[in-house]
Amino acid sequence: MKIAIAQLNPCVGDIKGNLKLALSAVDEAEKNKASLLVFPEMFLTGYPPEDLLFRRSFLVECASALKRFSRGVKGKRVAVVMGLPWQDGDGLYNSAAFIRDGRVIDVYFKGLLPNYGVFDEKRYFLEGKRKCIWQVGTMRFAPTICEDLWDPDSGIVPNLKNESLDFVVNLSASPFHMGKMRQRLNVLKKASKRLGAPVVYVNLIGGQDELIFDGGSMVISSSGLVSFIPQFKEGVFYTSMPVSGRLITPRFPRREEEAFYALVMGVRDYTRKNGFSKVIVGLSGGIDSALTAAIAVEALGRESVVGVSMPSRFNSQQTQDDVRRLSENLGIDCYWIPIDDIFSQFLNALHPLFKETEFDKAEENIQARIRGTILMAISNKFGWLVLTTGNKSEMSVGYATLYGDMAGGFGVLKDVPKTLVWRLARFYNRLKKREVIPNSIIRRPPSAELRLDQRDEDALGSYSILDRVIDMYVEEHRPVDEIISTGIDPDYVRRVVRMIDRAEYKRRQAPPGIKITPLAFGRDWRMPITKALD
Amino acid sequence: MKIAIAQLNPCVGDIKGNLKLALSAVDEAEKNKASLLVFPEMFLTGYPPEDLLFRRSFLVECASALKRFSRGVKGKRVAVVMGLPWQDGDGLYNSAAFIRDGRVIDVYFKGLLPNYGVFDEKRYFLEGKRKCIWQVGTMRFAPTICEDLWDPDSGIVPNLKNESLDFVVNLSASPFHMGKMRQRLNVLKKASKRLGAPVVYVNLIGGQDELIFDGGSMVISSSGLVSFIPQFKEGVFYTSMPVSGRLITPRFPRREEEAFYALVMGVRDYTRKNGFSKVIVGLSGGIDSALTAAIAVEALGRESVVGVSMPSRFNSQQTQDDVRRLSENLGIDCYWIPIDDIFSQFLNALHPLFKETEFDKAEENIQARIRGTILMAISNKFGWLVLTTGNKSEMSVGYATLYGDMAGGFGVLKDVPKTLVWRLARFYNRLKKREVIPNSIIRRPPSAELRLDQRDEDALGSYSILDRVIDMYVEEHRPVDEIISTGIDPDYVRRVVRMIDRAEYKRRQAPPGIKITPLAFGRDWRMPITKALD
Repeated sequence: MKIAIAQLNPCVGDIKGNLKLALSAVDEAEKNKASLLVFPEMFLTGYPPEDLLFRRSFLVECASALKRFSRGVKGKRVAVVMGLPWQDGDGLYNSAAFIRDGRVIDVYFKGLLPNYGVFDEKRYFLEGKRKCIWQVGTMRFAPTICEDLWDPDSGIVPNLKNESLDFVVNLSASPFHMGKMRQRLNVLKKASKRLGAPVVYVNLIGGQDELIFDGGSMVISSSGLVSFIPQFKEGVFYTSMPVSGRLITPRFPRREEEAFYALVMGVRDYTRKNGFSKVIVGLSGGIDSALTAAIAVEALGRESVVGVSMPSRFNSQQTQDDVRRLSENLGIDCYWIPIDDIFSQFLNALHPLFKETEFDKAEENIQARIRGTILMAISNKFGWLVLTTGNKSEMSVGYATLYGDMAGGFGVLKDVPKTLVWRLARFYNRLKKREVIPNSIIRRPPSAELRLDQRDEDALGSYSILDRVIDMYVEEHRPVDEIISTGIDPDYVRRVVRMIDRAEYKRRQAPPGIKITPLAFGRDWRMPITKALD
Repeated sequence: MKIAIAQLNPCVGDIKGNLKLALSAVDEAEKNKASLLVFPEMFLTGYPPEDLLFRRSFLVECASALKRFSRGVKGKRVAVVMGLPWQDGDGLYNSAAFIRDGRVIDVYFKGLLPNYGVFDEKRYFLEGKRKCIWQVGTMRFAPTICEDLWDPDSGIVPNLKNESLDFVVNLSASPFHMGKMRQRLNVLKKASKRLGAPVVYVNLIGGQDELIFDGGSMVISSSGLVSFIPQFKEGVFYTSMPVSGRLITPRFPRREEEAFYALVMGVRDYTRKNGFSKVIVGLSGGIDSALTAAIAVEALGRESVVGVSMPSRFNSQQTQDDVRRLSENLGIDCYWIPIDDIFSQFLNALHPLFKETEFDKAEENIQARIRGTILMAISNKFGWLVLTTGNKSEMSVGYATLYGDMAGGFGVLKDVPKTLVWRLARFYNRLKKREVIPNSIIRRPPSAELRLDQRDEDALGSYSILDRVIDMYVEEHRPVDEIISTGIDPDYVRRVVRMIDRAEYKRRQAPPGIKITPLAFGRDWRMPITKALD
């Protein structure tokens, strides 16, 4: 029996568009003589729809789209499992509808609702308690939804294990982070063992605000991987049941490889789904903005990316030359807008207040904010999206100017630690088989160039150690003592931790960015600003 | 028997400070011969501690603070109920510890965990299942925590009703919004009836990021209000059990009155708890900035508030005169920093790109962003907090400049609709018994003054109608059709709704502000930016 897997990219809120996409998948699956077509979790609304679920009109539209979808399946051979929210009495459920020949035969309600990390499912949904067993041809299968398989000791799994099922389907909207593939494989293998049946795992694909869904749908049995659909690739794919004996050895991409494709998808989908035709990037001659521009070109094509260079008295000739070379290599337009005259006027205007003070972060930040204002002016004038270029290391310790380099609609590298930025730049040049990002950019010690002879690492210490502290304190919530016990200088650890805690007000006002680690600043991280920790 | 109610103001994260505050309340209650002292929900950590609860070191510190607290109670007559998080096995519970003579006698775990609105309690806590009955002297009482009493048909209430209790205590951290007092009274009366015992309701007080806890602790029986502690007033207060027969008629403050005191407390606590000594406010001559400055003066004293006027070619003499009068009336310093020269330099720098275009929102926003940059430069230089002045009507439809007038640390009026801004300004002048906010400011039609002859209501329609649409669409999630059916022009409703939906990216980068309505933009409102709704 042929099963079609709809590893497709819906848009949150665009029920009409998602319906259309779903109907064309039905046609394709029917043409390919599939008996069953499975969509990802919440495909009809996109995931996560968040508080749109509180809008009655949204749920009504969704219910009527399901009716239209069912009519579209009428007369077809293929049976369909569709993910959507389902109102049942007074409660809302994260659901899977089983549709055959124009009718909704049955609806399964998700049992385990994730309410951790980026997930708020208990805010919206009730827990389902009932298992469903569905049949196609002679084969019996049970639907499950994402989290249902992640804790095989509770919820629906223990209820299914004596059902002698031919297979289990799992509709998922499992967000990407580096290394997630390996985690999913282990979880699904364990679940398959517990269920005594292979799992057809159907994952969403596409970017939604800070989240990336990477696809990577698969069929897995208790002995291993049977069939695998690539990550970051949209389409309707096919597998068959019962599974053949031959197992596949999974290939796990390197961190920088999977991060790169996630970032490209994130930029493409945020830009496209929000209706922008072009993006602009402030090019400083540093590696963050160079990589951001390269990712944007990969995502959108060079005609859709505009660079803006905004040199001041503190920018070296070398960085300016590098901006020129980078723009040429990428084939993008680059505007040159020097900011020194504007900066002088700000200093004049503030002279009566500042005249007794030293040049400090106030003057540094003015330059960054002039640049933010110029980028936003171009954005407002021409309707282009500003991509910000700050990385996760900066975002962690607050080494960034609010309303300055943090100004923009989407933070491409927001969740990319600086040490990974370097690896990504080198990966990109290898991928392109030429030095698109000039090596001088990759090798130059990072500097904000907001005053003379400034070096990031003078203020922050070595990025390789900084990133280790961030990793332990942010990602793993490890106590300061424990971090110190790994051998890092205690004063340094305490200073970094204090910077992280104190930068909360900046992060709260940062644009969304693409989550690629297990814990990104965003829905994942809900720290109070007011917290008197020191 | 005398019961002491600790309507006190902890600071989230400041376990040491909260412990100290708690110990001095014990001394005071002991001196006043109270037999029982009850603290609000999660007093020891402050509420809500959010993801601080994921830090093991934080929970360890909290447990050791409880030990120190217990030792502080040793030898005292008074028994204490303390709110705190409690680790039990692998799970964390929102808890109430019963402490007597230096020992923790028992711990109650909250049963109903709110996971709606601003609350995320299922992210952190497990549900308690066990009731506790505690005794002081001859009196038997049961502890409950906040939400436990809000649904008397589930959780702990049905289990308590046949216990012939003398009273029930309720430790609360119930956030303020206008009209909440009336709602609490009804809820508690109903719960008291169901329990067959009076309720001693102990609510937190103080501001925490966007939330205000207003106190208003009370004793309520099934027949009505027995004892009432004013809102917005910190202290240890006393009541006695059994309750006397006489009932109190509750006084419900007017909307603008309770909103005013909430805003004052919000500004005071955000400023103080985050360690700022001064705030600055950009004064435009409009009513929003005037009211913001007045609230800041009420909260912090006039020496702690600095005004900054930043006129451009588009600001009328009249608004400039009003700024001068307002600063004099409030007794605050005001700096004058004209922005026209800076603006001209921006236009020069952008001329090569903009020369073929009309003056539009790009040029308008540059002015607002120059002002934001100046305020932030002063903030960076002197360490003062920038208060933003935008109101909820603007925040809803996005009639505000990101990184411009939205730049700052705390949005005082962020949840105050424009129509309430006017009422608050009039209330304030009545309270002060003089025209502190000049009537010309209150009466002048609102304008951003970013180009000639600009009027808010030309772009937005009448604020009174706009606020009605916002109320229905945002606060009540009512469908467009229903809003139109109330008699408002359909095209206007659709235009406003589109503006609200499209402004999400701005709101995501707005500073936190003070919640005073049932639904504020913040933790309460989790809308996707990418949502393809039109």
